[in-house]
Amino acid sequence: MSGTRILNAAMRSKIMSAEQAAALIQSGMNVGMSGFTGAGYPKVVPAALAKHIMDSNLNGKKFKIGVWTGASTAPELDGALAMVDGVEMRLPYQSDPTCRKRINAGEMEYIDIHLSHVSQFVWGGFLGKLDVAVVEVAGITEDGKLIPSSSVGNNKTWLDQADKIILEVNSWQSLDLEGMHDIYYGTALPPHRKPIPIIRTEDRIGQPYFNVDPSKIIAIVETNKPDRNSAFTPPDANSKLIAGHILDFLQHEVKMGRLPTNLLPLQSGVGNVANAVMAGLKDGPFENLTAYTEVLQDGMLELLKCGKMTCASATSFSLSPEALADLTANLKDFKNKIILRPQEISNHPEVIRRLGVIAMNGLIEADIYGNVNSTHIMGTSIMNGIGGSGDFARNAFISMFMTPSSAKGGTISCIVPMVSHVDHTEHDVQVIVTEQGLADLRGLSPKARAKVVIEKCAHPNFKPALQEYYERSLRYSPGRHTPHLLDEAFTFMPNWMANKAAREAWRDDSLVQADAWKK
Amino acid sequence: MSGTRILNAAMRSKIMSAEQAAALIQSGMNVGMSGFTGAGYPKVVPAALAKHIMDSNLNGKKFKIGVWTGASTAPELDGALAMVDGVEMRLPYQSDPTCRKRINAGEMEYIDIHLSHVSQFVWGGFLGKLDVAVVEVAGITEDGKLIPSSSVGNNKTWLDQADKIILEVNSWQSLDLEGMHDIYYGTALPPHRKPIPIIRTEDRIGQPYFNVDPSKIIAIVETNKPDRNSAFTPPDANSKLIAGHILDFLQHEVKMGRLPTNLLPLQSGVGNVANAVMAGLKDGPFENLTAYTEVLQDGMLELLKCGKMTCASATSFSLSPEALADLTANLKDFKNKIILRPQEISNHPEVIRRLGVIAMNGLIEADIYGNVNSTHIMGTSIMNGIGGSGDFARNAFISMFMTPSSAKGGTISCIVPMVSHVDHTEHDVQVIVTEQGLADLRGLSPKARAKVVIEKCAHPNFKPALQEYYERSLRYSPGRHTPHLLDEAFTFMPNWMANKAAREAWRDDSLVQADAWKK
Repeated sequence: MSGTRILNAAMRSKIMSAEQAAALIQSGMNVGMSGFTGAGYPKVVPAALAKHIMDSNLNGKKFKIGVWTGASTAPELDGALAMVDGVEMRLPYQSDPTCRKRINAGEMEYIDIHLSHVSQFVWGGFLGKLDVAVVEVAGITEDGKLIPSSSVGNNKTWLDQADKIILEVNSWQSLDLEGMHDIYYGTALPPHRKPIPIIRTEDRIGQPYFNVDPSKIIAIVETNKPDRNSAFTPPDANSKLIAGHILDFLQHEVKMGRLPTNLLPLQSGVGNVANAVMAGLKDGPFENLTAYTEVLQDGMLELLKCGKMTCASATSFSLSPEALADLTANLKDFKNKIILRPQEISNHPEVIRRLGVIAMNGLIEADIYGNVNSTHIMGTSIMNGIGGSGDFARNAFISMFMTPSSAKGGTISCIVPMVSHVDHTEHDVQVIVTEQGLADLRGLSPKARAKVVIEKCAHPNFKPALQEYYERSLRYSPGRHTPHLLDEAFTFMPNWMANKAAREAWRDDSLVQADAWKK
Repeated sequence: MSGTRILNAAMRSKIMSAEQAAALIQSGMNVGMSGFTGAGYPKVVPAALAKHIMDSNLNGKKFKIGVWTGASTAPELDGALAMVDGVEMRLPYQSDPTCRKRINAGEMEYIDIHLSHVSQFVWGGFLGKLDVAVVEVAGITEDGKLIPSSSVGNNKTWLDQADKIILEVNSWQSLDLEGMHDIYYGTALPPHRKPIPIIRTEDRIGQPYFNVDPSKIIAIVETNKPDRNSAFTPPDANSKLIAGHILDFLQHEVKMGRLPTNLLPLQSGVGNVANAVMAGLKDGPFENLTAYTEVLQDGMLELLKCGKMTCASATSFSLSPEALADLTANLKDFKNKIILRPQEISNHPEVIRRLGVIAMNGLIEADIYGNVNSTHIMGTSIMNGIGGSGDFARNAFISMFMTPSSAKGGTISCIVPMVSHVDHTEHDVQVIVTEQGLADLRGLSPKARAKVVIEKCAHPNFKPALQEYYERSLRYSPGRHTPHLLDEAFTFMPNWMANKAAREAWRDDSLVQADAWKK
């Protein structure tokens, strides 16, 4: 290695070891790290810092930092720092088991923020001072510009706002990434904002590099380590059924003249169901698709490859090792079809609304009136976070949420009388899909929604109980706009108080990943 | 009267009585009516229609229509039609006592929609066919253009989308309104959308008139009737305290460099507290204020008059008779300071985000973790609706919610452990203000929020109970990210199950106005 990716001579002088770089971070600092869905996070400085924190703690000197990222990272970052209890405050999103355990034990503070809001909050000074940025890049050009890595996230904001900067130059990342990114430098604080000039998914409005003030760079660490690329799981039966319902719905919308024949830009959350939808689209009737989304997964790459999709805009990759190998081998072909943007742009309400995105996101539980819980188990334990689902759902042209109808081997209903935490209100949820069917809630009053959600989405094992709750509510509810029996809204279900085993399982499961938890 | 405001000769031939016009509306139709906060609604056709419906019902022929508006209207519209049980489906907002009673009795369907979403839903065909538009205008020009009335609301959409149009030409409305409106014809369905070119509050991007296809006009009815202008109530002690906290906060934000010295465009909900904030600003240190809001109330008119505010953009007036007289007498002076826009523009997420609006909205109850209920009593009865509060809160630069800390003469706490309905999630609420104090929730985890909300916002009479709930939750909650005891989250408060009288009062009060209810 030794500087081969650092073409700027002055910057080469700042090369040091991860341990030396980590030692520059002090307790109490807020540290903005790169990373989004396991891509483009710093690979060695956080772990070196964790060891440093461990030593400090063993010596009786409490050492904690604030950790700000794009979204989720990997065990080497969130896992390592949480393991040594080194995180005072984590934002805006995480999905790490150790981190989650600390948060739910009350040992770590966590703020769950709309991903589009983070940059604005930091520029506005709402979250306090950002002391250090630790950002992975793929290389440094001769004139000192940074070639972004496999995710963009909040890196532009971290580099601009932090007092000091530590760079990890990762030679594992393909240098062919150069030119794929579109870093927009036209954002501002009000009253100086101008329209974001994206009219179509494929519009490039920025530059392929990050600007950086070289005087702020205090360390450069060279690495050669892979992103956390998880194995691809083929869609299971339920995912395929959900995908089938969504494809039928989209075809119906086209037939009714409510969507163009090539649909509108697709957004899709991460996971098995999302991949199944993409697989369905590969065999489906739609051509010239586009995606305006957060994360580019295997399924979307396949669509780009086979020509069904012409362009995908995201802020990060989240690929299996096989898909990554495919991408890397064909990066030059993919480069004109993929755009990676800062998450303030990939998730910007203005652009999402203008493009008319079709939003498809997962959920933990939905209630019969169309409220969605995306974040909490039993209303109290965080799973991961809201991520970008709110950015997309609120501003989408069509806002869909999808889930298997039951969890934990069928013992828990994902359709409930009242969700125990609300992340997406009845005003923002238009379509709910389970393997049982699809509930189109547009133009329906709460009572009409309850009927169709129970009828179309609930698992047959839970349908009678939900129906019984709804009918009794209709009769005894103090108000009949949104009939409820508050005394038992959370407690009547067989999967709740009455089923202590399932309840305990829910609690334990707050320690595992959302996707796995639904099995 | 007889055509004096209808300068287009061909249109004069369509003049008829309200009864004749109402007879053109048939059962089962969806009718898009003008009207927003008691301004600019049709004054005579709805009441004539209500009488027609009554006759039909008395003859055993069920007659019901769908009623779509801008927002709330008046007894002559919502009251009359609800009285005769003539409304099958009401959207997107109402505040009428008779209407509310029907909805909460389960006799009328109601869809509570973000005001910025309505136009998009109708253009997208999501709500079904719009059969007839009934729109009040101030006059018709010689070339057949329509001079808008005292609110714009969804009128452009109704006129464009309805099969047939009935106009009420109201000569009570000042003709000096001509030129005040800015009707933007640049919206489209995706993928044809372009940036909304508003950069500053005062930007005019459209035309002062509605276009109308004359062949769709089936009736023109002449009227001379006032808007529902409610008496101005001087701010009470609590409202003044709330306003004081908000002014202190804004000054602090300026001092910290987080807001410009002339602040950012203000949005404020309707009511006593909102007026108190405006009164406070009149005596405050800020100059060259602007407002980008839904409704222009007395307080804002005062700010414009005294020169503290340079421009106000809204979609409607909601004035006292005195303020209205002032406006009418000085309309030519006010005209270059006031812009009335369609509600899809006044509430557009793109523009709200770009301008960096400071949003100030009321609430029914807030919980200790920062979730806000704006719409439901006891989670089941609708009060009014979410209106534009979600459009503004989600996209604002600073999102504030305000309420007296207690209701019903102090028997009910407006700060609760868990709200019984969520309209604004923890992710969207940055500041909560009561007469007790202001809780700045930015950058705080759920537990930190709970501490500051209880400390700053709760009424002293309820503080110990809330504190006790929080501490017990912290100890016994299954998860400690958002500690709760779901078994008693709704029921522990002295104002809930334990206080049957107060509970009954809540129920009964779902029949009265939110503002009055808080007394």
